[in-house]
Parts: sequence; structure tokens; C-alpha cells
Amino acid sequence: MNPHAYSAAEIDGVYRAIRERRDVRHFKPGPLEPGQLQRFIGAAHNGPSVGYMQPWRFIRITDSALRARIHQHVNEERIQTADALGKRADDFMKLKVEGILECAEVLVVGLIDKRDQYIFGRRTMPEMDLASAACALQNFWLAARAEGIGTGWVSMFDPQRLRDIVGMPDGSQPIALLCVGHVHEFYTAPMLELEKWDQRRPLSDILYENRWDQPAA
Amino acid sequence: MNPHAYSAAEIDGVYRAIRERRDVRHFKPGPLEPGQLQRFIGAAHNGPSVGYMQPWRFIRITDSALRARIHQHVNEERIQTADALGKRADDFMKLKVEGILECAEVLVVGLIDKRDQYIFGRRTMPEMDLASAACALQNFWLAARAEGIGTGWVSMFDPQRLRDIVGMPDGSQPIALLCVGHVHEFYTAPMLELEKWDQRRPLSDILYENRWDQPAA
Repeated sequence: MNPHAYSAAEIDGVYRAIRERRDVRHFKPGPLEPGQLQRFIGAAHNGPSVGYMQPWRFIRITDSALRARIHQHVNEERIQTADALGKRADDFMKLKVEGILECAEVLVVGLIDKRDQYIFGRRTMPEMDLASAACALQNFWLAARAEGIGTGWVSMFDPQRLRDIVGMPDGSQPIALLCVGHVHEFYTAPMLELEKWDQRRPLSDILYENRWDQPAA
Repeated sequence: MNPHAYSAAEIDGVYRAIRERRDVRHFKPGPLEPGQLQRFIGAAHNGPSVGYMQPWRFIRITDSALRARIHQHVNEERIQTADALGKRADDFMKLKVEGILECAEVLVVGLIDKRDQYIFGRRTMPEMDLASAACALQNFWLAARAEGIGTGWVSMFDPQRLRDIVGMPDGSQPIALLCVGHVHEFYTAPMLELEKWDQRRPLSDILYENRWDQPAA
């Protein structure tokens, strides 16, 4: 017996959240419970960070005119992405960005400016600041899922435009537009799988042994 | 009542894993249980990915000579990082990289080559492939923690050197050296906090409202 293992119910909770987390684009109206958003942000803030730099910042959007500007920008970007995708554009255009207007909370998440001073673990891998923040956001996503709340990570935006919209300084970097709120249902599989965009690969496709492309024994 | 919320024990499991996950550098000998590593990799593979690209690949290192080469490279990189850190180098040098030799399993994690063909969600944000893989690794980390197993994410390596060591193709990108195994204890706080390197910021430092640097109400 491993003395550090959690109870069966706790372990099940972790695996269940991992399995049932979805990138949500369809929301049901209604506010979060008091304190709930803070719990999710607290979960994120427990994320790992290279050299303990804690590079993440969250901008909660409570001004509805500002939310509308953000939505408008993402919608423009969606049309440009559809153009770039060519023949798959029709499929793509079905995926809604209306969630930004419908969800309970919108957050802009960004990396701090002046990140160059952090060297620890980043000398040859400067992009580890983004990796840290992404881990933090996965915490947010899982905590919200466990509490029955949906989260969507929108990355269809122009970083400079979004930076301008919420007054981010030079050198900072927006990485996510989070849509958070109640849902009618969580999708039974990732939306892009339901939409026949692609399927999850078998585990044997992603696991090698000792050398790239060498199947694991 | 939110019908999509998990049981209290399941929710506790998720928050507990988030709170107690640590970047582990000190391991206790002994193999993982059969199937355990596969469960953790399966948890990772349930991660989100932009455009469903599933950009992550895991190379399990079972060849002990290969593990020794990887350790040697990280140790060289550690010395160079300490040089770059200057006066804090002494503190830094205390942090061990011996975990690579002691832990039950070492995995090299990388992003696939030929990622340019994936445009969905990456037209203006190509780095979202790394963000996706980092979310996947957070799943791994949390699943392992729930099962009482420690994980360390080492990013002190030269990407090109590590790519050469495990035969990764041009265009692919190593992002993590994962050390996975049993532990005597999980640190009570992040190791860099215990080592007085830095402290976790208060939540009010990382949460703004409507505009960068504007305190949340």
C-alpha cells in the first residue's frame, strides 16, 4: 500500500474530472455561486511555475461593453480563420463563438511583462512560462468541471488587439480568453470529435520507448 | 443544486490533488505498479488540444545507459544555469537533479514535428500547441499525485541536445523530462518556497478587473 495515495473516491474524482472536462462553447444563463470563481482562480494559482515565477494574471471582465468588444474581435478572427482553413471552413464556421456573450464570466488570461529576468529553468527553454500558465489553466478547468461548471478556452484572437482592448503592457502576452458558466449538458466527447473533425488517437500512437517512433514494448 | 457537480468526496479529491501536487526532485527506489504509468499517460492524453491536434508524444526511457546520458546532459545544463544566475547560484546548486537517476520512470515528452499544418485556433497563436501539451502534463501530474506518486518536470536541457539523444525529428520539440516515482514524503510547500527562493503571491496580486493592473472589486 502506498501511504500517500488518496481514497478511492478522491482518486475517482480526479480521473473523472480529467475524463469529463470539455472545452465548452455553449452556456446556460445564470451567475456562478458567490466565491466560486475565486475558488477556480485559486486552483489555477496552485499551478506549477518554472522558477516559481507565477507568470499568470487574470482580468475578470465585468463591463458588458468591454465583453461585447472582445466578442466582436473574436468573431472577426473566426471569419479570418475560416478563410485560412479553406475547404473545411464550412465545418468550422458551425462552431460557435456566441459563448462569449452567454457565459457567466469572461476572463482574459495573460503572462506578465518583464519575464526575461526569470532564468531559472528557462535559460534554454524560455517558453516554459507559457507551459506553467497552461498547467494553471488546466487546474482551473478541472476544478470548474468537478463543481459542474463549464469552461471554454478561446485562442482565436490577435494578441496585440486583445492586449490593446484590456490595456496590457508591452511584453505581456494574452494566452486565453476563458468563458466560464453553467451548461445544459457537458458534451459526451470533445466537440471536435462529435463534429467529426478528428478522433482521439490510440495510446500506442503517442507512447514510444527509448527512441522517437519506436513502439513501446 | 447544480446537477453536473460531483460528490463532495470527488470534488475534494480534485482540489486536494491541485493543492498537494509538487514538483518532485527526491525519489524513493522501487517500480510503479503494473499499469500505473499507462494510467498517468492516459490521463495526459485526455488533455485538451487546440484543433484536437494531440501534439504530445511520450518516450519512455527503459535503457539505463540512455538514462545516464540524459542525466549527464541535465547536470551540465544545471551548472551553466547556475553560472547565469550569478549570486543566487549557491542556493540554486542545492536543488538536486539526482532524481533523474533515482526515480522509477523517466519520460521525454515532446511536441510532434509538422505542426504547421494545424491552423485551427493557432493562426495567430501558434504556441497553443505547447499550451495544450502542458495541460496534458498537468493531468499526468495530478493523476500521479492522487495515486501517491511523485512527478518532477525538468526543463533544464538544451532542446537540440535532447532531441539528438532520443532521435527526435527536425521540427519536433522536447518540452519536458518527466521523473516519476515513489517518494518518502511530498514537500509541504513548493520546494522553492521551502528553500526561501520565493513565496506564493496573494490572489489579489494576480486578479484584475476589466483592465490590466486594476484591482478586482
